Amino acid sequence: MNLNSIIPISGVIALLFAAYLIFSVFKKSKGTPKMQEISNAIKDGAMAYMNREYKTVSIVAIVLAAILGWLINIPTAIGFMVGAFFSALAGYIGMNMSVRSNVRAAQAAKKGLKEALFVAVRGGAVTGMFIVGFGILSVGMLYYLYRDPKLIVGAGFGASLISLFARIGGGIYTKAADVGADLVGKIEKGIPEDDPRNPAVIADNVGDNVGDCAGMGADLFETYVVSLIAAMLLGAGLGKGEIILPMLLSAAGIFASIVGILVIKIGKSKNIWKALSTGVFTTAGIAVVLFYFVIKNFSASLNLFYASLAGLFLTIGIWYTTEYYTSKDKKPVQSIARASKTGAGTNIISGLAVGLESTLVPVILIAISIFWASYFGGVYGIAIATIAMLSITAIIITLDSYGPITDNAGGIAEMSGLSQKIRKVTDELDAVGNTTKAVTKGFAISSAALAALSLFVAFANEAGIKVLNLISTKVVIGLFIGGALPFIFSALLMGAVGRAAYVMVNEVRRQFKQIKGIMTGKAKPDYAKCVDISTKASLKEMIVPGIIAVTSPLIVGFILGVEALGGLLAGAIVTGLLMALFLSNGGAAWDNAKKYIEDGKFGGKGSPAHKAAVVGDTVGDPSKDTAGPALNALIKVLNTISILFAGMFVLYSLL
Amino acid sequence: MNLNSIIPISGVIALLFAAYLIFSVFKKSKGTPKMQEISNAIKDGAMAYMNREYKTVSIVAIVLAAILGWLINIPTAIGFMVGAFFSALAGYIGMNMSVRSNVRAAQAAKKGLKEALFVAVRGGAVTGMFIVGFGILSVGMLYYLYRDPKLIVGAGFGASLISLFARIGGGIYTKAADVGADLVGKIEKGIPEDDPRNPAVIADNVGDNVGDCAGMGADLFETYVVSLIAAMLLGAGLGKGEIILPMLLSAAGIFASIVGILVIKIGKSKNIWKALSTGVFTTAGIAVVLFYFVIKNFSASLNLFYASLAGLFLTIGIWYTTEYYTSKDKKPVQSIARASKTGAGTNIISGLAVGLESTLVPVILIAISIFWASYFGGVYGIAIATIAMLSITAIIITLDSYGPITDNAGGIAEMSGLSQKIRKVTDELDAVGNTTKAVTKGFAISSAALAALSLFVAFANEAGIKVLNLISTKVVIGLFIGGALPFIFSALLMGAVGRAAYVMVNEVRRQFKQIKGIMTGKAKPDYAKCVDISTKASLKEMIVPGIIAVTSPLIVGFILGVEALGGLLAGAIVTGLLMALFLSNGGAAWDNAKKYIEDGKFGGKGSPAHKAAVVGDTVGDPSKDTAGPALNALIKVLNTISILFAGMFVLYSLL
Repeated sequence: MNLNSIIPISGVIALLFAAYLIFSVFKKSKGTPKMQEISNAIKDGAMAYMNREYKTVSIVAIVLAAILGWLINIPTAIGFMVGAFFSALAGYIGMNMSVRSNVRAAQAAKKGLKEALFVAVRGGAVTGMFIVGFGILSVGMLYYLYRDPKLIVGAGFGASLISLFARIGGGIYTKAADVGADLVGKIEKGIPEDDPRNPAVIADNVGDNVGDCAGMGADLFETYVVSLIAAMLLGAGLGKGEIILPMLLSAAGIFASIVGILVIKIGKSKNIWKALSTGVFTTAGIAVVLFYFVIKNFSASLNLFYASLAGLFLTIGIWYTTEYYTSKDKKPVQSIARASKTGAGTNIISGLAVGLESTLVPVILIAISIFWASYFGGVYGIAIATIAMLSITAIIITLDSYGPITDNAGGIAEMSGLSQKIRKVTDELDAVGNTTKAVTKGFAISSAALAALSLFVAFANEAGIKVLNLISTKVVIGLFIGGALPFIFSALLMGAVGRAAYVMVNEVRRQFKQIKGIMTGKAKPDYAKCVDISTKASLKEMIVPGIIAVTSPLIVGFILGVEALGGLLAGAIVTGLLMALFLSNGGAAWDNAKKYIEDGKFGGKGSPAHKAAVVGDTVGDPSKDTAGPALNALIKVLNTISILFAGMFVLYSLL
Repeated sequence: MNLNSIIPISGVIALLFAAYLIFSVFKKSKGTPKMQEISNAIKDGAMAYMNREYKTVSIVAIVLAAILGWLINIPTAIGFMVGAFFSALAGYIGMNMSVRSNVRAAQAAKKGLKEALFVAVRGGAVTGMFIVGFGILSVGMLYYLYRDPKLIVGAGFGASLISLFARIGGGIYTKAADVGADLVGKIEKGIPEDDPRNPAVIADNVGDNVGDCAGMGADLFETYVVSLIAAMLLGAGLGKGEIILPMLLSAAGIFASIVGILVIKIGKSKNIWKALSTGVFTTAGIAVVLFYFVIKNFSASLNLFYASLAGLFLTIGIWYTTEYYTSKDKKPVQSIARASKTGAGTNIISGLAVGLESTLVPVILIAISIFWASYFGGVYGIAIATIAMLSITAIIITLDSYGPITDNAGGIAEMSGLSQKIRKVTDELDAVGNTTKAVTKGFAISSAALAALSLFVAFANEAGIKVLNLISTKVVIGLFIGGALPFIFSALLMGAVGRAAYVMVNEVRRQFKQIKGIMTGKAKPDYAKCVDISTKASLKEMIVPGIIAVTSPLIVGFILGVEALGGLLAGAIVTGLLMALFLSNGGAAWDNAKKYIEDGKFGGKGSPAHKAAVVGDTVGDPSKDTAGPALNALIKVLNTISILFAGMFVLYSLL
């Protein structure tokens, strides 16, 4: 048997394992009619959003495919459609699974923590397995067809496009709903989170799925696919084996992830975080062993194996750094909580300081990984380290999708009036969800930066650039413009959430005022109206950032040429990484500072410090869930477009 | 007569003109004993701070001079002392003048707007003229002595060092006092700005001088000197005339500025902003004419004249862009004010969005200027454009120092109980001070970025780097680390203000509680204690950022070598520029959004929207007056150190 055949086999096994997981979750009870009613409302809202988003995006995709087919070539156009289709399909299935697991997790909570964790993890793992399965199958299939990595770049762009819109749209959706629900419900009306009297509560629960499940899924699918393509492009200059190797390592990672997912079980200590961490570290450990054998079989030298370790080193380093900066038990979050005592102003100042500071260690870790990987394998070594990092994508997504499932489970338990005991179980699950979200976000950001770096080198190769001189005017100009893109992009997204939340706040206020009996529970609020506001806002507000992301490399490439474009890509990667870390970690720290106070510190719930911390949390929401994550998509899409059009820029640029 | 002799002549004339201005201001009355008492308290606080700061910094300077003399050469060590000494002296004289003009401006306000403007402008112009006078004389003298631009780089580093500490220390001082005074006085106690009952009121007034006058002065002195040196270094490769030309253009700028300063007069429209703008645009207009003749005399081609126009284009472009993003009459500020209606959270989100967005146009303007200047004169052309921009430094500092003088004048008028009519005059002057501060800050940032860019190219020359390849691992690593520096630096400074303000808040609260009769005016608060807190905090908190700024290029240079260091410099310039624009413009926009509401919009003073806007202003304070401006100093000091040690890095770097 040819070793290469494990590539398609791993993909098929991923899908089969996903099917098994679906089966094992679907066996579980969906709970009471009341619970199902709420769950259905969330499901309907989520699906309505997805359908409308996909409708819009598919028009864009068809136009772009036509342009690609016309300007570049047909295989690229086909690859583009394949990449976009599988990304969308993975997102669709993942969302469907997530909104079906939430109610089952809530029901399972009646039996206890162990049972509920089982449902939440397996529900999340479905998305993870579909993403890696579709990822490796689509890339492998296209390579089998075309036998040329260059012709697969289109698939990367397709994945980028879906990811871009999923991140932007999902981020705006979820935070417009969340901020709107909190500002009126929690602050003005004083009703708790997930209270069924809040008109925006369903939109908020839909948002969790749309942002964290679909958004993160599309993001990591993209990183998975583009880093495979980048590694294959860079490998193409070295030999045929080097083209295949990245896929073999990814296949190894799939097997490792399956074991890791099955290993997650709650121990006697009832420590959920430990159970999840064990799954991740088991996966990483198995992956290392498999990498060793794959690479030993591939070449006499173990250099690429050492390079791959840099990727796992980065994963672990980011894991602990993110935890440090965003955990309630550590100094940074507590310093924000303490600053809340002197008001919202000092809470914000201190949160900004924490977010900005949190960029340092990740950047140093990335610098070390780059140096390390390149020491053992040059730029191809960096690509291999990226592949190693992303090989555990399936379990990372499992942890990430766990978030919205448990969050929704808590919401369903609250809204359907389940007992305090059950709420306690879902609360415990949900509390860990905050940490998993922060940590997986750190993973997504740093892997996106590494992937973008590989793409950047691949772009230079495509454009025939051997040396990109940083002392030349054009490169410097590109660097400045590229550096500014993440700032503008963040500005647009923060502004979009602000605008959408403003509309939501007014609608929620209107309902509380006009619908008599909401507060006493006699009348039902108009949930659908709020769901509609979030959906419309996110679709409308994704246009401008989308256009900027897609057209800016084209404008710079066609006017200033490939050198300036190279500068733009480098600038965008650097500031994109920094801004994403700043916004994501800062946001998570603000969130947990509030939770820390809610645990009874500095006066606890309702105290002035708590009010100040709620302001910080409101600011942190669009930072960590809209602007920050969308930057991942931005830096990758800039690169995939640039690679695709590199040849044309060389021929037709103005200056 | 040799044309070159106008270089020392222009410097001497600048100093003589400054002496004349001092004389014309000192003739004015110092007002009532009460006014003088308050003014003296401010003066004593300011001088106490300066003396302690200079004592600390001079120890650092002597150690560094010894190291430079030992490791590099004696002329560099001497140049370093000269640069540091004149920067410190200009700061000292400027501060002295500022704290003596404030009370005279308050007194002059009794006679009306025209008279008060006269004092404020002339008081500010003294600082401006000393800075350019000392700047051109010290560079000219050192060049006359050594006849080699390389040996003058030390003077740039000396100026950088003073600027670094002046910016950090001044920024922390002013905002610890301001935030402390506002949070307790305005918000908790409900007493107005500059109320003598507020224990932190004198510290706050001292802070205006320390931050805006001394800090900005040292910053622009540095930019003035280092851009001269960078232009001369780049000119050295072209010919002797090219070394002299930058100084000739600066001399022309001095003459133009004198006319510009004399031209500032309030017209019949009583429009202060128009009067000040007229001064600036007159200066720029005269400068253009003089540049034409200087360059025509220098070479047959007018290419360098066209290059110089790029610098003036950038000045004007930044002028209007900054005004757009920070003016109460424009959309961005009004959007923040509107967002305040839904609370502090949305105020902050929308302010962040405005600040982030405000980076785009300046970056595009800088890209155009670089392209334009380099089209006509290569890298030397960029240096000439920077010189052209900075040639109007004297009038820019005049506008900037106008800020603390009128701000203090208002404070003195309030505290000494002058009539409402007089307060109206000082308020009008002060209101314009906000805009001048924002606009001059934009000038300082963009000129710092251009200067740093020239220094960066000069560094590459010194290090023998012909091509700095952005696709090499080391350069990319440097780019990431350099990009992170401004983030860390901002984090440290924001955190420092948070910590210092926390101590200040507690002290002010303590005084209100323990000193009976403060609120009724029967007992005097202990102003000195608050002055002392700000002084100590700023001296303590400048240590870590100072060490990071000075050592990071040394660490990277000695470990990773000059290529990585080149990447570091480029990364720091890009993110330093972006972060400085974001923080400064965002901060000014928050400030003016609050003022817009205070003008009676969205409920006016005391409304919920106003309370939300006060939170935004509190966050904006350390952004615009501490972290943002300090980044200017950071990006220049990184470059001057790197140039000085370039030769050693090449010989001794580890990797």
